[in-house]
Amino acid sequence: MSDSSAFDRLVVELRRITLFGSCGSVLGWDEQTYLPPAGGEHRANQLSLLAGMRHEMATSARVGDLIAAAENEVRGEAAESPRGVVVSEARREYDRATKLPQALVEELSRVCSLGQQAWIEARKAKSFAQFQPWLEQIIALKREEARALWNGTGEIYDALLDAYEPGASTAEVAAVFDALRPPLVTLLREITESPRQADPSILTRTYPRAAQEEFSLAAAKAIGFDFDAGRLDVAAHPFCSGFGPGDCRLTTRYDERHFPGAFFGTLHEAGHGIYEQGLDRTQYGTALGDSASLGIHESQSRMWENFVGRGRAFWTHFYPQAQRQFSDALGKEPFDNFYRAVNDVRPSFIRVEADEVTYNLHIMLRFELERRLIGGTLEPADVPAAWNERFAASLGLTPPDDAQGCIQDVHWSAGLIGYFPTYALGNMYAAQFFDAARGELGDLDAQFARGEFAHLKEWLNAHIHRRGRLYKAPRLLEVVTGAKLSHEPLMRHLRRKFGELYGL
Amino acid sequence: MSDSSAFDRLVVELRRITLFGSCGSVLGWDEQTYLPPAGGEHRANQLSLLAGMRHEMATSARVGDLIAAAENEVRGEAAESPRGVVVSEARREYDRATKLPQALVEELSRVCSLGQQAWIEARKAKSFAQFQPWLEQIIALKREEARALWNGTGEIYDALLDAYEPGASTAEVAAVFDALRPPLVTLLREITESPRQADPSILTRTYPRAAQEEFSLAAAKAIGFDFDAGRLDVAAHPFCSGFGPGDCRLTTRYDERHFPGAFFGTLHEAGHGIYEQGLDRTQYGTALGDSASLGIHESQSRMWENFVGRGRAFWTHFYPQAQRQFSDALGKEPFDNFYRAVNDVRPSFIRVEADEVTYNLHIMLRFELERRLIGGTLEPADVPAAWNERFAASLGLTPPDDAQGCIQDVHWSAGLIGYFPTYALGNMYAAQFFDAARGELGDLDAQFARGEFAHLKEWLNAHIHRRGRLYKAPRLLEVVTGAKLSHEPLMRHLRRKFGELYGL
Repeated sequence: MSDSSAFDRLVVELRRITLFGSCGSVLGWDEQTYLPPAGGEHRANQLSLLAGMRHEMATSARVGDLIAAAENEVRGEAAESPRGVVVSEARREYDRATKLPQALVEELSRVCSLGQQAWIEARKAKSFAQFQPWLEQIIALKREEARALWNGTGEIYDALLDAYEPGASTAEVAAVFDALRPPLVTLLREITESPRQADPSILTRTYPRAAQEEFSLAAAKAIGFDFDAGRLDVAAHPFCSGFGPGDCRLTTRYDERHFPGAFFGTLHEAGHGIYEQGLDRTQYGTALGDSASLGIHESQSRMWENFVGRGRAFWTHFYPQAQRQFSDALGKEPFDNFYRAVNDVRPSFIRVEADEVTYNLHIMLRFELERRLIGGTLEPADVPAAWNERFAASLGLTPPDDAQGCIQDVHWSAGLIGYFPTYALGNMYAAQFFDAARGELGDLDAQFARGEFAHLKEWLNAHIHRRGRLYKAPRLLEVVTGAKLSHEPLMRHLRRKFGELYGL
Repeated sequence: MSDSSAFDRLVVELRRITLFGSCGSVLGWDEQTYLPPAGGEHRANQLSLLAGMRHEMATSARVGDLIAAAENEVRGEAAESPRGVVVSEARREYDRATKLPQALVEELSRVCSLGQQAWIEARKAKSFAQFQPWLEQIIALKREEARALWNGTGEIYDALLDAYEPGASTAEVAAVFDALRPPLVTLLREITESPRQADPSILTRTYPRAAQEEFSLAAAKAIGFDFDAGRLDVAAHPFCSGFGPGDCRLTTRYDERHFPGAFFGTLHEAGHGIYEQGLDRTQYGTALGDSASLGIHESQSRMWENFVGRGRAFWTHFYPQAQRQFSDALGKEPFDNFYRAVNDVRPSFIRVEADEVTYNLHIMLRFELERRLIGGTLEPADVPAAWNERFAASLGLTPPDDAQGCIQDVHWSAGLIGYFPTYALGNMYAAQFFDAARGELGDLDAQFARGEFAHLKEWLNAHIHRRGRLYKAPRLLEVVTGAKLSHEPLMRHLRRKFGELYGL
């Protein structure tokens, strides 16, 4: 390979585009964490400019030529060879980007930046009406985006889903959700009818903010998030943003009368962060240095949050620390009551605070509404009614206001449509990966009970993180676990865990 | 004027360049405030890319053509007309930028980003040796920059000074410093020999950090910094960064055993911030929406810090609050002792903590060394010896280590050479502006004693901030005060204030 091969020049160019995009990530993070109220418009202008310039870089004829030349160079190599994947993923992203008009990209960035700021205010005011004009603009733009991207087969929502879960189709997602729903609903009914109920009020005692922060940081550190290469800050919506090698930002939010929010939120985001920190930095900018899909990303966050963080073994180690840290709230509370409380299954309004069982129902609802919004059979103005109707049908509750209903999540305000289903896919992937890890690593629970999480983390590093996007999600799942996507491992996990807790 | 006049198109382009540059400011701010240690290299790469792209935008043939066409359009208009100034300042900056090779701009950005990170560590380690390789690289690059920019008249240091104080020359600065030095040294000797000395130990009692933060924020707010459009965060070096309309960031640092550092530092940066917030946002991106010079900028920060913030009237209002906030340290301390302590004049090591009298001597030392570094008569390796020798000659003290000597300031690590003299110019401008304000606004002290600062702020808004760079600094001074730059108003202020305090 000479230095001036098209492949090498393509990699230099891909790095430059990714590096440039990462500058926008810094501004996006700051917008959510530290932006003063009056700075919103200027920030929207900055982000719109950067998005437009990034799009221009990514769709330049120069990049197109380099991809074509690199395709010639790697033609003899296997499709799953590292070089082959770098080039084919560059092609996939280039073809996608060139379908989007520059003006649409800039407008989407600007409107979504302002939309997120409007969403924060609307959520505070518990008013969908206040957010509605923004949702209308955003849905109109996302429909335009979907039309520009769609290849005409399957369903138009595929075009948006593909951005987050390459290779997945709406029909496949709907099928696996349809398979998951009945056993989930059955389990939920059995749990709800069980006489052995937890006392969740344990978790709404007073948990001082400083102690929550210290405890959350300690747990995130214990499971392997490296704070030399990252931070935890406060934002209205918890998220993880990997800026690039050595810099990954997590956010959370604290409520002194609700322990699980910040704690499990931090574990969740730390799970994302451990993935970001585990990427191969020598491959930065190419598909090999990037995550496989959002579903795979979510499998990591949900694994650390739920499979590890809500497990008996985890709390065997951490509960004595929690009792010291929150002595007023937990000092005299027996382990079992606390463990049951953090695993309380109960229909509730807020997705990010939902238990492992009902969580997937929250996702299915969003998936259904999004499909209709993009397909044109639901208009933004009708979202609250549709939400409340579907929520009641699915979870048996009616949200008391929009903040606990259709405007609870940041996603739509940020233009992230097609994103929600990856959360439930993540739960299923997580169950499958966790079974595989357990098969190879032996008694993980014994390790967790001793506060040892390194074996699992290193296994995930080796089998998932360091592979980047060498394999697309369905193929990665097969390579790592030997199986295809299925709802069954997740249901087995839920049956086993909650069967024991609720005496089913 | 049609929408498509060259002037209008130039303004659109200037706004775009400024907007793009402001994205880099966000990353620069984050680097100083929240960047995790391992993120330094990636941040340097990001900043280098942005600096290079900004330079490319600012030096494009398209911009050059627009400037030339706009020059034709405004040819009949007065040199000090708003349109004339927008075009001539665009020309000045374009000609300056096009003299700098793209590679130099990128390399300077990268090295200075890493250099600042290295400086933080070197200062912690009190080791010039640790910083020396970075200083060598930076000085070599700044010499190259100066050579590229210098027009061959005057002195090569002019080329760097011009970036911060357009229109000023090294010779003029040296002349006014030479005029200031003798009366300053005389005053300092009289003060030092006075039997009426303050007790500065009052200020090194325990001042809890949270209370310092609250008190500093309250004072910054009181003098008129708008926290809806800005923030105060913590950084190794206090600074102010105006990102653009509605978003201006201040930083400070807290030391529980040193009250003045954070407090006067915050007032100082808030003074800069009030200037940034007072700029005409409709002129964003052009010279009319930008500050006049760094010297004028510094006149604002030093005015609020010293002429207002270290004044008797200011503390008449704030001291009772300070006594409540810091009851352990100040509860029983008489007003006069505190007032004398915050105005204690005494040779000391750290510039940003220096009193109003010795401060200018710190600047003259740096100006002298910088001139020699750029002129080639001083090498980076010899800086500590030269610093310590000149420091002893000027202030009668020998720094105990480099952290209290030649590596105390961030500037050189950030490539800010030619910047220091603007601080002393700012002191002189401030004295002249303050005299003018007092002449027009009557008894400012009576207002300050009531906690009223709005008249002064609005006067500064109208006479200085909203004018942008319609006038260059020397001309602005004349327009506002009717006089030329002189050391005399500053000396009169110092003589009057410290004459009273020290019974001279």
